[in-house]
Amino acid sequence: MRTIDAFCHFFPPDFFRLMSETAGGTRDVGKRMQGVRTIFDLDARFRVMDQFEDYTEILSLGLPPVEAMVGPDRTPEFAAVANDGLAELVSEHPDRFAGWVGALPMNAPDAAAREAERILINGTANGLQLHTNVNGACLDEPRFLPIFEIAAKSGKPILLHPARGPDMPDFAAEKRSRYEIWTIFGWPYETSATMARLVFSGVMTRFPELKVLTHHLGAMIPFFDARIDTGWATLGSRTSDEDYSAVSA
Amino acid sequence: MRTIDAFCHFFPPDFFRLMSETAGGTRDVGKRMQGVRTIFDLDARFRVMDQFEDYTEILSLGLPPVEAMVGPDRTPEFAAVANDGLAELVSEHPDRFAGWVGALPMNAPDAAAREAERILINGTANGLQLHTNVNGACLDEPRFLPIFEIAAKSGKPILLHPARGPDMPDFAAEKRSRYEIWTIFGWPYETSATMARLVFSGVMTRFPELKVLTHHLGAMIPFFDARIDTGWATLGSRTSDEDYSAVSA
Repeated sequence: MRTIDAFCHFFPPDFFRLMSETAGGTRDVGKRMQGVRTIFDLDARFRVMDQFEDYTEILSLGLPPVEAMVGPDRTPEFAAVANDGLAELVSEHPDRFAGWVGALPMNAPDAAAREAERILINGTANGLQLHTNVNGACLDEPRFLPIFEIAAKSGKPILLHPARGPDMPDFAAEKRSRYEIWTIFGWPYETSATMARLVFSGVMTRFPELKVLTHHLGAMIPFFDARIDTGWATLGSRTSDEDYSAVSA
Repeated sequence: MRTIDAFCHFFPPDFFRLMSETAGGTRDVGKRMQGVRTIFDLDARFRVMDQFEDYTEILSLGLPPVEAMVGPDRTPEFAAVANDGLAELVSEHPDRFAGWVGALPMNAPDAAAREAERILINGTANGLQLHTNVNGACLDEPRFLPIFEIAAKSGKPILLHPARGPDMPDFAAEKRSRYEIWTIFGWPYETSATMARLVFSGVMTRFPELKVLTHHLGAMIPFFDARIDTGWATLGSRTSDEDYSAVSA
C-alpha cells in the first residue's frame, strides 16, 4: 500500500536560515521547532521516512506563520523563499515528496493574493496552508477575500492549520493559557471557530467551490454535530455580535 | 421506566423576583432566561413535565451565576434565598422533583464555604452547581479550595455548568465572540479547560474523593482522548505558564 502523508511540516534550508534570524521564529512555538531536527534537516527526515515502506509526504511549513516572524515589508520575501524551497524539494525528490502546499504573507494581503496566484495558478503548489488566525485576526476579514477567490478559482484546497498560542487566555481574568490548554483543546477550538466564521460571514457562500481541509478530523465539528444542529437552529446565525440577547432560547 | 432528569434549571419564585431586579439577571443570558416561561413558572413547568411518564427532575438554578447579578455584599443572601426555594420545591413536590443542587455566592468565597456546609452537610442539597468561571476567574484559584474541601467531605457531587459569555472573544484581535460561537463551541471548550485546570493545579489530587459531573458528555474530553494522552505525554504538565517554551516537542 502506498501512503501519502498529507500534512507534513518541513522548513526548506534557505527559509530555515531566514526564520532563525527572527525573534518570532526562535521563541514560543518557533523555539520548539528549533528543537525538532527532522523538521529542518533533510538527512534526518529521510532516516525517519526510511522506516516506512512506499511512503511519501506532502510538504508544508511548520509554525509559526511567516507573519509572526516579520512585518509586512519582509513577509512577501519570506513566503517566496519558503515556497520556492518547497517546490524545489518536491521537484528534486519526487520519490520522497508527493507535493507541497504554499505559505502566504498574510499580513500583506495584496502581496498574499499575488503569491497565491503565482504558486497556485502559475506554479506547482498543490494547495495553500492558511492558519486559523493572522496575528490574532480571523480569516473572515474582507482584506483576505481576494486570497479565497484565487484558491477557489484554482480548485486546489486550503489546508487550515491551528495557530492559537499561549498568549490567548482561557479565562477572562487571566493573561495567558496554562498547562498547554491553548494547544491541546485550543487548537481544535480555534479550528472550529474559524470554520464557523467562514460559514456565517458568507465566505463559503461566496465561493461555494472553495475546499478547506482542517486538522484533527474536523476538530470539534463532527463530535458536536448534534449541538451544532440544535444550537444554531435555536439561536439563529446572527451576523451581528450585538443583537444576540434578543433571543429567547 | 422511571426517568430522573439530573440537570434541570428552575428559578424558585422568591429568587426569580430578586434576580429580575438586577442588571445581570436581565441582560445577556439573563435576558434569555426571562423569555423562557417554564424556567420560572411552576404551572408551565408542570404542563411540560406532564407529557412524560414516570418523570422527575433534579433542580438547579439557570444562568447567570448569582455573582454575575450582584456584588459579594448581596450574593450570600441571593444564594440562600435560591437554595431555600429549591429545597422547598423538592420538599413540597416529591413526585415532581427528585432532588436539588445548590448555588453558592462564589464572589464571597468564605460565605460560599459556609453556604456549602449549610446545604451539603447540614441540609438536603444533593450536590452543588458550580460554573466554569467566577466572573472570569478559574475555579483553581486558592480562594475556592475550602469549597472543594466541603464538597469532597460531603460525598456529594459538583455539577459543573459552562458559563462563558459573548464577551470572551475567540480571536485576540476582537472584543466579542460572534455568531454564538461562545456557547456552541465555547461552552464545551471552557468545561474542558476547567477540568484540565482542576487536574493540573492539584485540586483533584488534593481531594481524590471529589466528584465532578460535567455537561455535554464530558465536553471535549472523551472525543479528544488520544490528543489528550499523546499531547500531555509529549508536552508535559507544566505548573507554570512561563516555561512552556523550554519544551522540544
